[in-house]
Amino acid sequence: MGVEYDGTGFSGWQVQAQSVRTVQGCLEAAIGRVADRPVTIHCAGRTDAGVHALEQVIHFETAAERSMRAWVLGTNTNLPADVAVRWAVRVSEAFHARFSAIARHYRYLILTRATRSALERERAVWVHRPLDLAAMQRAAAALVGEHDFSSFRAIACQAKSPVRRVHYLELRQRGELIELHIGANGFLHHMVRNIAGVLLAIGRGEAPAAWTRELLALRDRTLGGVTAPPNGLYLARVDYPPEHALPQVADRERAAGQTGDTTEMPG
Amino acid sequence: MGVEYDGTGFSGWQVQAQSVRTVQGCLEAAIGRVADRPVTIHCAGRTDAGVHALEQVIHFETAAERSMRAWVLGTNTNLPADVAVRWAVRVSEAFHARFSAIARHYRYLILTRATRSALERERAVWVHRPLDLAAMQRAAAALVGEHDFSSFRAIACQAKSPVRRVHYLELRQRGELIELHIGANGFLHHMVRNIAGVLLAIGRGEAPAAWTRELLALRDRTLGGVTAPPNGLYLARVDYPPEHALPQVADRERAAGQTGDTTEMPG
Repeated sequence: MGVEYDGTGFSGWQVQAQSVRTVQGCLEAAIGRVADRPVTIHCAGRTDAGVHALEQVIHFETAAERSMRAWVLGTNTNLPADVAVRWAVRVSEAFHARFSAIARHYRYLILTRATRSALERERAVWVHRPLDLAAMQRAAAALVGEHDFSSFRAIACQAKSPVRRVHYLELRQRGELIELHIGANGFLHHMVRNIAGVLLAIGRGEAPAAWTRELLALRDRTLGGVTAPPNGLYLARVDYPPEHALPQVADRERAAGQTGDTTEMPG
Repeated sequence: MGVEYDGTGFSGWQVQAQSVRTVQGCLEAAIGRVADRPVTIHCAGRTDAGVHALEQVIHFETAAERSMRAWVLGTNTNLPADVAVRWAVRVSEAFHARFSAIARHYRYLILTRATRSALERERAVWVHRPLDLAAMQRAAAALVGEHDFSSFRAIACQAKSPVRRVHYLELRQRGELIELHIGANGFLHHMVRNIAGVLLAIGRGEAPAAWTRELLALRDRTLGGVTAPPNGLYLARVDYPPEHALPQVADRERAAGQTGDTTEMPG
């Protein structure tokens, strides 16, 4: 399934104590009602509290036979308003939402204006002064390619290797918004928010553009920047080998991409 | 003052019973704390429950002397997160937020896709089938100009005359979004939502494009269309004669217009 959510009201993705509201918990409850039996779901990338998803990918195994339309509409009926299933498709036993993924794409939104925004308060991080976008773009270029990202991982990160390949890291101005677009073969815990935190410091002039290159070489998280807030972060898309033929919507701009009505709800 | 708000959590603009949360009530409380005495505010256009504003304009009279910076920052500190002051400026006795306004601009956002959206649920109305945009555009053209809008006003509308001049009414596709942009010398109660309701019916093929012209001629609200939901509606901008020299931000796309950092917070 492709799943969209507004992370604001969730204590992150992963089921924790019973009393905590999580995206996984809401989805397992809703899908379980459609399946009429319990399901356990697996996602492509676990997101932290406050982080949004345009198209998280999940899978589950079930003996329940339903049409794809019934999975989508039935699950949406049982979900709260801040989570929505976009599509569902039958996959082979070989598919795993996390382990089959070959690339992940995130977006980080920065709103630069003198006063805070009421409408975008949970959708973008607010910076009250203009940022030096050119310096941020120079600094970002140093992170593209295969690198040891130890300086950009959370202290608690469990990944065996700190090496990841960043396919692209672009910053674009759209009015008052700066959009950070990043794609990689995988991400360490807090990696996008730590990159955003370093680029924000460079944009504010608190560090030179060369700081990203220096941090890569140091391979030491304790020397890195502040982790940027979660509310600007979106899991935008996950890529899989073409044989799985997922009916994913494009890596569209938020509500500004290509319409996907004909392919979003197969079955 | 220019004021942005997310209408989702408000029972509209206007102060009602003490127990009801309104934009006016929150602003009067916050400004009153900065002024250290009660204030009564007047707005350019009262909005209904669930309707948003990118740049509502308000005025108030006070003997309190504060810098414009103190009015903006102090009020924002005392406001909840879903309302924000964008700018403040001293005006002459001749200025009135409502009566000095010479034009108003609204936007109505329609999200067309197969499944509901979690992130845009309170920011756009959702239509689960594609709409006939060309028919909607033909129908919209008939409403431009000076007309008797009796068929598009709320039954309870208090305005003396039903005649208004619509300066433009444009519909634009941006990915899955259809943006309706409308500007007029003034609006009757529910006029934008009633126009949106009629255009949505035409877009769905339930009525011909000529229906707008017929409704204008009938001058009878009971024959009109369904009032479109409030969550897609934004008060975008209010125009005043240039002598008032308000530091308004442009009629920008939501988070996609020209940056206005240098002019947003004078004083």
